[in-house]
Amino acid sequence: MKNRQIVLVARPKGKLGLEHFRMVEGVAPEPKEGEALLRVHLISLDAANRAWMQGATYRSAVDAGSVMAGGAIAEVVTSRAPDFRPGDLVFADTGWQDYAAVAAKALVKVPHIEPMTHLLSVYGIAGLTAYFGLLRIGRPQPGETIVVSAAAGSVGSFVGQIAKIKGCRVVGIAGGAAKCDWLVKELGFDAAVDYKTGSVYAALKTATPLMNVRGRIVCCGAVSAYDGAAPAAGPRGVPGLIVVKRLLMQGFIVTDYFAERQVAVAELQRWVQTEQLKIEEDVIQGLENTPKALIGLLAGENRGKRMVRVSE
Amino acid sequence: MKNRQIVLVARPKGKLGLEHFRMVEGVAPEPKEGEALLRVHLISLDAANRAWMQGATYRSAVDAGSVMAGGAIAEVVTSRAPDFRPGDLVFADTGWQDYAAVAAKALVKVPHIEPMTHLLSVYGIAGLTAYFGLLRIGRPQPGETIVVSAAAGSVGSFVGQIAKIKGCRVVGIAGGAAKCDWLVKELGFDAAVDYKTGSVYAALKTATPLMNVRGRIVCCGAVSAYDGAAPAAGPRGVPGLIVVKRLLMQGFIVTDYFAERQVAVAELQRWVQTEQLKIEEDVIQGLENTPKALIGLLAGENRGKRMVRVSE
Repeated sequence: MKNRQIVLVARPKGKLGLEHFRMVEGVAPEPKEGEALLRVHLISLDAANRAWMQGATYRSAVDAGSVMAGGAIAEVVTSRAPDFRPGDLVFADTGWQDYAAVAAKALVKVPHIEPMTHLLSVYGIAGLTAYFGLLRIGRPQPGETIVVSAAAGSVGSFVGQIAKIKGCRVVGIAGGAAKCDWLVKELGFDAAVDYKTGSVYAALKTATPLMNVRGRIVCCGAVSAYDGAAPAAGPRGVPGLIVVKRLLMQGFIVTDYFAERQVAVAELQRWVQTEQLKIEEDVIQGLENTPKALIGLLAGENRGKRMVRVSE
Repeated sequence: MKNRQIVLVARPKGKLGLEHFRMVEGVAPEPKEGEALLRVHLISLDAANRAWMQGATYRSAVDAGSVMAGGAIAEVVTSRAPDFRPGDLVFADTGWQDYAAVAAKALVKVPHIEPMTHLLSVYGIAGLTAYFGLLRIGRPQPGETIVVSAAAGSVGSFVGQIAKIKGCRVVGIAGGAAKCDWLVKELGFDAAVDYKTGSVYAALKTATPLMNVRGRIVCCGAVSAYDGAAPAAGPRGVPGLIVVKRLLMQGFIVTDYFAERQVAVAELQRWVQTEQLKIEEDVIQGLENTPKALIGLLAGENRGKRMVRVSE
């Protein structure tokens, strides 16, 4: 079986471009003992993909010459591991290719649902990141105001909607009037601030009282900081405002909460069924378009969860 | 009775200087119903004094033309409040002057101890800030490494010693070889980094593995950020590193924990008695020297808790 692979040619020094990728063709690997051969259906695109090119994060860096790393929903074709059989659906870091042989211990079995794309959006990393970050660290109380940055993105769109379900006033920050309108009119945000128009600070101050005493800042990523060399200086007021307003700022990786994953998925499903949670997906067709899709995501092209369909 | 007062002439735009203060002489105020007339013994000097000149913090700003604000240990001279009588010792925001009339509800009674200076160091704001910040937010575990900035200052010197008591490895950051030697040889720190010599980053990296996964950053103030106009940009890695390393960064004001004050003081007393906690004090003589003492504190002149003795 023919296997197309997208290789990272070089780690970018500045902005990521198409020149950093190359497609190569070979044959699908043979699974070793304890591995399964996977056929990739849907590749998840995440801001974190770009961060992995900057250096080691919660995982090792993606090195020049390697197949680009990335999570995907994939189907078991053949298995040399006892717990997996052909037809099983899994979430795994297959990388950007048609086929991958992956060790069984690195596979997470997922159910067959329709549409399958929901496994990467609301029931995947995006939905779970929103759920755990907001509820476990942010701990919003009814009547509180929450501000969501990258609010039209995959995680942000869920964060804002879940905060509405919890009785909060929600202000989103997004790029462009179209996204801002969508947040307010379609997703029910109370206000939206367009960071591409004038002063974000002034607009935000009009929409919210800014950080209150004992406010919480939940950090799950920083899409605006990844597409360059070293990260820029941090925001003003660290640590001054953190002290004066007794703020809590906390980072997390969604996998920290995976022990509670089933509870979260069940609650997300209820909200989807009652139509309290709308799911926006941005599905790009074809493995060959994956580099362009990631570059576009870093530029803020997408609304909701962006992914690439590699095979049906 | 003659009352000398030090007035803030203007809020500084840049560095604080002697020209921002003026001494005026008048007569001691008459206490109103519900107030006590206080004679000031010891004025506490704190980096926060300078922050109050930048604008509103957890208290309103000190305005031009006002007596400079400041906490002090003072003695009741006459009282028109039922709970206070002449001779009582209190902690209060008397401001920088010989006498102040203060409402009873703004007074905190303190015991007569020898030396009285300990009421402003180990048993005062400095000791309690170290105690609560380290133990309630930092929650150090034996064997963990803690890094203390402004380590030779009043709060930092206690933080490092308490962390040693709790079985941690302690690295201090301070300005100058003399302070660094003192931290290691007198206070028992495991290492000290001199921020005035070469690259702090390189030196710190040699002394510690830098922030570990699930590290905590406790923010009680930022002495280096106060003596200027608007605060500079914050540290790199916010929020990137906060995410990747799942860090917690939390600010607090010591008064948040005052309900637990007695427990803390009792534990601090035990450590003082067993000589596990050394107390460094830097006592300047004379009200007229208070401006100079604060300017010097902001420049890092002091070792341990700096205060001004106004009267015996």
